[in-house]
Amino acid sequence: MDRNIARLRAKLDGLGVTLRPHLKTAKSVEVARRMMSTPQGPATVSTLREAELFAEAGITDVIYAVGVTPSKLAKVIELRRGGCDLAVLLDTVEQAQAVASASREAGIIIPALIEIDCDGHRSGILPGDADRLRAIAAALVDGGELRGVLTHAGGSYSARGDKLKDFADTERKAVVEAATILRKAGYACPIVSMGSTPTAHNAVMLDGATEVRAGVFIFFDLVMAGIGICKVEDIAISVLATVIGHQREKGWILIDAGWMAMSQDKGTSKQEVNQGYGLVCDVSGQPFDNLILADANQEHGIITVRPGSDAGLPALQIGDRVRILPNHACATGAQHQAYHVVRGACDLVEDEWQRFGGW
Amino acid sequence: MDRNIARLRAKLDGLGVTLRPHLKTAKSVEVARRMMSTPQGPATVSTLREAELFAEAGITDVIYAVGVTPSKLAKVIELRRGGCDLAVLLDTVEQAQAVASASREAGIIIPALIEIDCDGHRSGILPGDADRLRAIAAALVDGGELRGVLTHAGGSYSARGDKLKDFADTERKAVVEAATILRKAGYACPIVSMGSTPTAHNAVMLDGATEVRAGVFIFFDLVMAGIGICKVEDIAISVLATVIGHQREKGWILIDAGWMAMSQDKGTSKQEVNQGYGLVCDVSGQPFDNLILADANQEHGIITVRPGSDAGLPALQIGDRVRILPNHACATGAQHQAYHVVRGACDLVEDEWQRFGGW
Repeated sequence: MDRNIARLRAKLDGLGVTLRPHLKTAKSVEVARRMMSTPQGPATVSTLREAELFAEAGITDVIYAVGVTPSKLAKVIELRRGGCDLAVLLDTVEQAQAVASASREAGIIIPALIEIDCDGHRSGILPGDADRLRAIAAALVDGGELRGVLTHAGGSYSARGDKLKDFADTERKAVVEAATILRKAGYACPIVSMGSTPTAHNAVMLDGATEVRAGVFIFFDLVMAGIGICKVEDIAISVLATVIGHQREKGWILIDAGWMAMSQDKGTSKQEVNQGYGLVCDVSGQPFDNLILADANQEHGIITVRPGSDAGLPALQIGDRVRILPNHACATGAQHQAYHVVRGACDLVEDEWQRFGGW
Repeated sequence: MDRNIARLRAKLDGLGVTLRPHLKTAKSVEVARRMMSTPQGPATVSTLREAELFAEAGITDVIYAVGVTPSKLAKVIELRRGGCDLAVLLDTVEQAQAVASASREAGIIIPALIEIDCDGHRSGILPGDADRLRAIAAALVDGGELRGVLTHAGGSYSARGDKLKDFADTERKAVVEAATILRKAGYACPIVSMGSTPTAHNAVMLDGATEVRAGVFIFFDLVMAGIGICKVEDIAISVLATVIGHQREKGWILIDAGWMAMSQDKGTSKQEVNQGYGLVCDVSGQPFDNLILADANQEHGIITVRPGSDAGLPALQIGDRVRILPNHACATGAQHQAYHVVRGACDLVEDEWQRFGGW
């Protein structure tokens, strides 16, 4: 984990932009402190619950990067009153009016970023939609504050090789184009925010962007390894499980980790190498040859050799422990209440870091 | 929920067997109390954490229905010392020896059931494997106690119509056959336990079985509706979400519930009707015509009309609320920390029932 943080920080330092880590992957104050450049941030969150709990931990430079609703503004105001510089995200005039109006009523200026849709995969407005950009900005500054523009190339997860560089540039160009339109219209637009782990690691030039957001880089996972963003040995999160039985005729080893422990994320199923519900390692974290968690019930996992492989089943006995590397660190982490912190051969739990859920 | 409980209880009363509800679906003391016949049980759990927290709530007739490991026996003994009649599950001589040995050392008899594999989908031994049944029983009673046999037809989830009746009878025959072998060998085998929600609701005759386990019947879900075990209007669990935006050209409505709120269970994707990540209802729980949560990111959901349908998009505005019925109640419940209890038109939260996770 420390190496993953150092790697992205070095990369972005070289490109002259700030890292605003997304805290949604780990949802842990201990992890957040290690991801951020200062104890106060900057940081990104995906829920108001994260904003609230991280604010309690002194993290005060925060973007809530999911489109805001009028019903959430009371909590935003409460957090801002408490000293957290929390900014919200929006992509409609209606939301901008709600933010401006709530700001006026509370006597607290809520800053907002306009979400830009750089690759058609989710929310946001098109970067060149000047009319809508100006209309939102105008509605917003009538009580609120335009903090900037923000985009996320979720589509980058399906890219490979040089296409990842293209996605990074697509993100950059999208927010720079929108920021340019807004600045020409007289809005300062101080934050020009882009990012995803794949694009952050593949960006070549980030002129015009002020910051990059990324989350899963902290732990990495099999999906990131499949895209080529990390190696399997960079994955800094695993689920410790115990062998509970065998179906020897079928080549199955049963463990006490099913989808409740791993999540149901099968994100590698459409990649070149399908890892099932996860890649099986020995207790020290060393992967077995072609051994995967092929199937999962709620609390049962079925380990098999990867279909098509001629690897043999390791001689695991009832009670033996294995570690499973997950497809998706955000999803697997969310199934657990704490991280057990290990190093190297994973033979000593040095610490336990709580994580939280909820909204 | 009350109606779902009454329905299964009436069904099993008519068949002369005990309901041993599985508490893993709800993981909530409040829900457990409503599912069980008495405040003490009987009940089924899938983790020792459930056993522990339910024991603290006075639930003392419990089967831990996932194959036990030697490392878990200390906790089992602790719970039994505390007054919980917790029984474990196993399918090897090795586990039976560990249970017997731990029982002798602690001076506390740990009762165990032998897991029977009735349909090849997971763990357990074949019902007619007399040698192994007797060997396990012999190893077990040398300090421990043979409490009975147990099976679960996980394969029933892919059955339909009369095939569901066949699965119920497959379960019944498997445990009765194993119990008969054990009794002939001189073991009393008082518990003959079978069950899954599909088989519990489709059993016609349960002679020889002493109890039926089922869990998801409490809430039901879209997978169960797809199998034909319940109707959509029987589903007693939903996720309340808020509209955060639109991509009108694409026919998308964006909400603030993604896979973190719904889970990544796509269990209906292989059924006749693919419900995506869930079926969209108005705030009172009335389904919209052919409206589904078609895609999900961590905190974003994309609602669309079901592909191929000619239904129109409802006029949902930013800030409007919707309810999403989940594919899988166990998986979706696990993403939340409490149930907000509503009735009828869902317009009043009458109570909040905590749920727990962890192992």
